Amino acid sequence: MKYKTLLIGSLSAIVVMGLLVGNINARENERESLLKKPTEETGIPNKEKSDEWAKYYPREFDSWRRTKESETIEDMLEKNPALVVAWAGYAFSRDYNAPRGHYYAVQDNINTLRTGAPTDDKTGPQPTACWTCKSTDVPRLMEEEGELEFFTGKWARLGSEVVNPVGCSNCHDDKTAELKISVPYFDRGLQAAGMPTFAESTHQQKRSLVCAQCHVEYYFKKTEYIDKNNQPQTAMVVTLPWAKGTTVEEIEKYYDEINFVDFTHSISKTPMLKAQHPDFELFQIGIHGKKGVSCADCHMPYTQEGSVKYSDHRIASPLENIDKTCLNCHRDSEKNLMTIVGEKRERKDILQTIAFDNIAKAHLETGKALEAGASLDELKEVHTLIRHAQWRGDMAIAGHGSFFHAPEEVLKLLASANEEAQKARIKLVGILAKHGITNYIAPDFSTKQAAQNAIGLNLQPFIDEKLKFKETLEKEWKKQAIEKGRINAKAAEDIPDNATSYFKK
Amino acid sequence: MKYKTLLIGSLSAIVVMGLLVGNINARENERESLLKKPTEETGIPNKEKSDEWAKYYPREFDSWRRTKESETIEDMLEKNPALVVAWAGYAFSRDYNAPRGHYYAVQDNINTLRTGAPTDDKTGPQPTACWTCKSTDVPRLMEEEGELEFFTGKWARLGSEVVNPVGCSNCHDDKTAELKISVPYFDRGLQAAGMPTFAESTHQQKRSLVCAQCHVEYYFKKTEYIDKNNQPQTAMVVTLPWAKGTTVEEIEKYYDEINFVDFTHSISKTPMLKAQHPDFELFQIGIHGKKGVSCADCHMPYTQEGSVKYSDHRIASPLENIDKTCLNCHRDSEKNLMTIVGEKRERKDILQTIAFDNIAKAHLETGKALEAGASLDELKEVHTLIRHAQWRGDMAIAGHGSFFHAPEEVLKLLASANEEAQKARIKLVGILAKHGITNYIAPDFSTKQAAQNAIGLNLQPFIDEKLKFKETLEKEWKKQAIEKGRINAKAAEDIPDNATSYFKK
Repeated sequence: MKYKTLLIGSLSAIVVMGLLVGNINARENERESLLKKPTEETGIPNKEKSDEWAKYYPREFDSWRRTKESETIEDMLEKNPALVVAWAGYAFSRDYNAPRGHYYAVQDNINTLRTGAPTDDKTGPQPTACWTCKSTDVPRLMEEEGELEFFTGKWARLGSEVVNPVGCSNCHDDKTAELKISVPYFDRGLQAAGMPTFAESTHQQKRSLVCAQCHVEYYFKKTEYIDKNNQPQTAMVVTLPWAKGTTVEEIEKYYDEINFVDFTHSISKTPMLKAQHPDFELFQIGIHGKKGVSCADCHMPYTQEGSVKYSDHRIASPLENIDKTCLNCHRDSEKNLMTIVGEKRERKDILQTIAFDNIAKAHLETGKALEAGASLDELKEVHTLIRHAQWRGDMAIAGHGSFFHAPEEVLKLLASANEEAQKARIKLVGILAKHGITNYIAPDFSTKQAAQNAIGLNLQPFIDEKLKFKETLEKEWKKQAIEKGRINAKAAEDIPDNATSYFKK
Repeated sequence: MKYKTLLIGSLSAIVVMGLLVGNINARENERESLLKKPTEETGIPNKEKSDEWAKYYPREFDSWRRTKESETIEDMLEKNPALVVAWAGYAFSRDYNAPRGHYYAVQDNINTLRTGAPTDDKTGPQPTACWTCKSTDVPRLMEEEGELEFFTGKWARLGSEVVNPVGCSNCHDDKTAELKISVPYFDRGLQAAGMPTFAESTHQQKRSLVCAQCHVEYYFKKTEYIDKNNQPQTAMVVTLPWAKGTTVEEIEKYYDEINFVDFTHSISKTPMLKAQHPDFELFQIGIHGKKGVSCADCHMPYTQEGSVKYSDHRIASPLENIDKTCLNCHRDSEKNLMTIVGEKRERKDILQTIAFDNIAKAHLETGKALEAGASLDELKEVHTLIRHAQWRGDMAIAGHGSFFHAPEEVLKLLASANEEAQKARIKLVGILAKHGITNYIAPDFSTKQAAQNAIGLNLQPFIDEKLKFKETLEKEWKKQAIEKGRINAKAAEDIPDNATSYFKK
């Protein structure tokens, strides 16, 4: 009996030790694989291709690749038809979807009706600047061509060059994997705002700043220069309008002082501003930003795989990972947290609907006043009110997460937008009456279709053109890109190219 | 040498032990004093006098007495002159100060120009209901007279009876010191809203509910009854309008359905609602309320005196005790926390100014339309818009802390208030034009004086009357109260009776 016990004990010990050694070996292999890094000298060849990074950072790559899962097309014009009227005369009135995963950045830029249907490398309508936030090829091209040269010409010029979507090299140094910024305008923006440059910032700040390279308000600044062939050229340079500060009011003042106009409204003739995606500016104002939380803390939470901890590069809504995001700091149930966020969104939706309803009506009423003979001079104050109304409203909603990042600021902005729109509408009643029009009721814009009718927009020619472009020039771009080795054929095939709001029809 | 060391050691030990025994004795005395309680049979005689509670609860009493320190008169009409116009035809347009400490509750009710200048116990203008939230004498009188009987007659009827300000017996049982409510309408309100009654609530909920006895929206419900002499009587019974729920929108619906009117606006003739102090309703909506924080947690923080922990009854702004309030849960510097609260207040102020500016203008423009011959029927929609605008705006600001308790809801309400006011103003441009008036500009109301001029209010007669009342009837009340033993002479003398906005002049 005693002998048997001893034997079983010894055998058990041997098994356990064996397992332990196995475990140690496995961990050692894992440790080695984690330490596998590109050499500091050469870095990663073809670093613009994210799959080249996969051998060193397999987990980060795999999670980045999962941005593909964020594939749903959400037609924001169907959801908010007043936006169609707000953007009459501007490409946004044709097509505007909520953003999908980074994986689709290049393809969605090609697909949207906003970028039109170029027929060769000189047709647009959009400038090359339009690619800026879409691809790892952009920093590459800036390095190869020069920054001003990159920002010269129409976007079609780079159709076969900008092929890899937002990926590793946009935010990481390929030699050290350290965070870095890859576009020169960003540091210029920080400096204009009097903020520390990227290099001067803390690591935690960098975990937001790399995102802010793109997730900010910007405009295309017309810049004349002489190229290497001694020819005068005009670049449209992405520029952050932060010289007076980064609040919505400060940026408004900046644009007003330089009389910047994104587009002239086709109905009201208002000199308009279009907000891009000022996520960073509004995030800074909100409580999470103030408390030093970074974008990555919630959108790229630390994740465990076996014994390895890494940052999840499937950038997504933190609500999809409440256990790894909110719950790190907040002791509450997922259900309660979802309810709280839902209420924030609901309040934003209420004020957004009110504000954009009045903004759209103000445009249409101004159009009616023009039709009735009102002069631009008579409408000057109305134009300023509408410009500011839509700017503030747009800045509040264009960053889709701002209702959460800075809920109070967003509500204040929407309230202020509505106040400006209503002031315009009060003036318009008088102006219309002066021109003999009383009780004017703006046409229906309660659906996307009705709204596009109201602004006299027929989508079909734009769709037809686009489909033709996709069958011809786009196919050519892809072929060339593969031939030039700009993209791996498998990666190119992997991106479905036909998911847009108009294909759904 | 050895002997000396031993001697010093022994002596030291004796001293230390002596101190220890002393300390133990002191603590034992303290423990006994803490256990000193009124008998469960008799309770505290004259419990309406808070100084009678001092012998059992000296710390709580002393801290309650310090509500006297909150003595500043802040003239809200000077700060927000648009409110004068908003309340034209209602006593609030004469005099409206931010609340002072509980200590002044009775005296401030006597002093305000809102309560007028009664000349005997049958003159008002206000009903007895007006005393309801001011005094520990109110539950006493309800017990002695009956609830409906208490709510019958003018406030002057009880001038020598309601003399002790909000104090111990409003919230505590005098036999057990347990939290209790002392007015019957409150449980009726909770039941109407489908909420647990006070008795059914948890202790933590009770730490808010005792405050909510007063810090809620209510109205005076006209109630006919037959008194003990078989005479028909009309009581004005404090009633919480919660039968449809406690949100601002739900209460609005409640009042609309019963066509309740607090006053008819003297200029616009709008059937108006006046919000009281809906602190509790808005607090529930905000994040602190949602997370189960109670009023007392921040406004009556636990405090240490020697080895005794007690709840500070100097009910004040939590910002005066950040170390004992915010910092219990939030790890941040006092400076940062103050900044965050300041920003919330600033946003509220911005939207409040906008909303009440438009509300005031809507009233004045409606007045002009009436003057020009517009019929009440023509103005029906305008009246509804103004009624709702002012209701929502008033509910957002009448509870002075709501901008902090529920910042997002307050911003939403102010935005919604402004939208309704602007809708009215747009309609008014058309109505005025129809009656031959174009480009009407409302009179200036940028100061309290200008605003009172704009509504044709001359304060002087009200001040003169009031001063006469204070020299005559009020003095008589105080004399009688002391003679009847309703208040201790020292306590009566202790309250300065001349701090009001008009005395300052």
